[in-house]
Amino acid sequence: MDGSTAAPDRSAAGPAAAHGPAEGISLPARIAEPGEAITLDELRLAGRNHALPLEALRHDLTPVGLHYLLVHYDIPDLDPAGFRLTVDGAVERPLTVDLAALRAGPRAAHTVTLECAGNGRALLEPRPLSQPWLDGAVGTARWEGTPLAPLLRAAGLRPGAVEVAFLGADHGIERGVEQDYARALPLAEALRPDTLLADTMNGAPLPPQHGAPLRLIAPGWYGMAQVKWLRRITVLDRPFDGFQNAVAYRLKRGADETGEPVTRIRPRALMTPPGFPDFMSRTRVVDTGEQLLTGRAWSGGAPVARVEVSCDAGATWADAELGEPLDRYAWLPWRHHWTADRPGPHQLRVRATDAAGAVQPADQDWNRQGMANNAVQRVDVLVRSSPGGA
Amino acid sequence: MDGSTAAPDRSAAGPAAAHGPAEGISLPARIAEPGEAITLDELRLAGRNHALPLEALRHDLTPVGLHYLLVHYDIPDLDPAGFRLTVDGAVERPLTVDLAALRAGPRAAHTVTLECAGNGRALLEPRPLSQPWLDGAVGTARWEGTPLAPLLRAAGLRPGAVEVAFLGADHGIERGVEQDYARALPLAEALRPDTLLADTMNGAPLPPQHGAPLRLIAPGWYGMAQVKWLRRITVLDRPFDGFQNAVAYRLKRGADETGEPVTRIRPRALMTPPGFPDFMSRTRVVDTGEQLLTGRAWSGGAPVARVEVSCDAGATWADAELGEPLDRYAWLPWRHHWTADRPGPHQLRVRATDAAGAVQPADQDWNRQGMANNAVQRVDVLVRSSPGGA
Repeated sequence: MDGSTAAPDRSAAGPAAAHGPAEGISLPARIAEPGEAITLDELRLAGRNHALPLEALRHDLTPVGLHYLLVHYDIPDLDPAGFRLTVDGAVERPLTVDLAALRAGPRAAHTVTLECAGNGRALLEPRPLSQPWLDGAVGTARWEGTPLAPLLRAAGLRPGAVEVAFLGADHGIERGVEQDYARALPLAEALRPDTLLADTMNGAPLPPQHGAPLRLIAPGWYGMAQVKWLRRITVLDRPFDGFQNAVAYRLKRGADETGEPVTRIRPRALMTPPGFPDFMSRTRVVDTGEQLLTGRAWSGGAPVARVEVSCDAGATWADAELGEPLDRYAWLPWRHHWTADRPGPHQLRVRATDAAGAVQPADQDWNRQGMANNAVQRVDVLVRSSPGGA
Repeated sequence: MDGSTAAPDRSAAGPAAAHGPAEGISLPARIAEPGEAITLDELRLAGRNHALPLEALRHDLTPVGLHYLLVHYDIPDLDPAGFRLTVDGAVERPLTVDLAALRAGPRAAHTVTLECAGNGRALLEPRPLSQPWLDGAVGTARWEGTPLAPLLRAAGLRPGAVEVAFLGADHGIERGVEQDYARALPLAEALRPDTLLADTMNGAPLPPQHGAPLRLIAPGWYGMAQVKWLRRITVLDRPFDGFQNAVAYRLKRGADETGEPVTRIRPRALMTPPGFPDFMSRTRVVDTGEQLLTGRAWSGGAPVARVEVSCDAGATWADAELGEPLDRYAWLPWRHHWTADRPGPHQLRVRATDAAGAVQPADQDWNRQGMANNAVQRVDVLVRSSPGGA
């Protein structure tokens, strides 16, 4: 991965090929055929990797177990006592530290909204086959740990350093490439004061599934950058060529294109679905009368500047009232009063615009890996005459 | 629900019909057509209701967020300060208590394995359409709270009491019936000393999704009995006729049959899948050599007496070594040494037998709601020559 120094062991395209690929069990990515329904492979992933149930948008900080979760391979079984983090590559003084040393360093905490880059993938047509997210692959937590920059400076960045690669402990095969999960950030992003090596989530030690004992938090970036079970940080003097940067997490339409990298979170708003649900269809039932619609909006680029709600399937839009931000890269609460005065089916929509002018599209611009989708949410609601009404 | 006293409000088949059914959005249950793939409705449920990732079988107590979760409707938003539990029905002295009063009562804690009655449903052929569980709808936690029996005795059971109904706060429609989730237990089960009103999970306050602030724990029973967001307990002098007892959670083949009620958890063993996975197919890759297979086994009827492992797709079986039980209704660890000496595809299986002689079937006896499945787990593994081997 880095020509100048030792490469992390077992990272993408590493020594796996030396003892034979796992033929037939790890296939190239594919796109669903027209009309092809959800596959068993997708269902297996959906059963492991859970979304935020949208009623949990009510919480400023998402309780553990409701925050979205994506684990590429298995949750590793790491012993905190034996845990070591190595910093190497294009540095003057490679170093290895244990958790006690990391915890003795400077501390910082940020409230950060994380979203999977594949959020909304299963709503695309045609549908890229991978983790089949609908629209709930998001969550917000308070992450505390030590800022990354002082650690990199302690190791001494060498001239020519351009990226920083983060190697996790979760091991698997993906599209034929055996790897430990690894992702890199541009150096300037790694040096941001709010880029953290986090060891707590919402005030408690990291749960196993969120990266215990140590993970990266890169506020504003999609989830693929937030490397969990972090055990090695390698400073690079050239762009990282690992699988998750160079192959996965690219915006492209054709299979042979290089594509553009997925980086920061695009603006999105979500609504807490009003009323109550049908068990199977999840359609919402709302009684006629005044309804307070609420939800959250976020963007990893510029702060959210505007949230609009449509109660007539996108025909007309009204500005929602925005609440106070919890933190720069945390979601913003919004609210909107809706008079549900006409019984029958309705479709509610919500869309965010950020201060840079980026706005959610009504329909998604398709890409073949289903990345960085942010089409507006559509909430189907059946309004019925309220018990006390006509 | 109980002819002798006031019925809980909005329980199954209650006042919903008074203001009109939600036509077209809450349909009767159906069975998948031959070859019909996973539907969008099933995917929506799979994205909300998560399974235990099987590598989490390594934990004696399942960390929050890895324990399986099934929420029929929405997670309710309850204020603990305003919370009251009512005990009424066929009792001498109906009572209402707040959380402080409940916490001032006797305390008890039990480590209990919970499993959804629908675990394995999506593996059935034909497939009943509902929450599409594969095999991970299970988890084990330490539940602490106050035993139910003293509270019932304080209210004074009237002669003729036969069942106890538990009403939760989650509200929705299911197969056309608007309801708050409610389930009943036979009186003798409600009076068992280990039947708990739990307010903590693994030593912390109940998380919202597991029933905060109060839930029922009925050790040994499938998950449908473990009523979350519990707010009313009604003693009945006749069998409960609510939807979840009388219609759902029945073992039946024909749509018009009454069927048998789903009660206690049937024996099941699961294996922590060895090796590492392919991202998309979840197939496991194992290097040749000695493999320690581990997992858990449980039964809600009699204690687990035997766990057998097959490393040749069921052709031959060997006894696994059993560990110590954590508690009467908690899963039991097991282990088995496997010499993976032949590269290529293998299928591992594991099956439990309990002390009453109940054993897991190789193939499931089908029922139309996909309940109480316990067919043996099948783990497909690709063995490859180890790096140091031939």
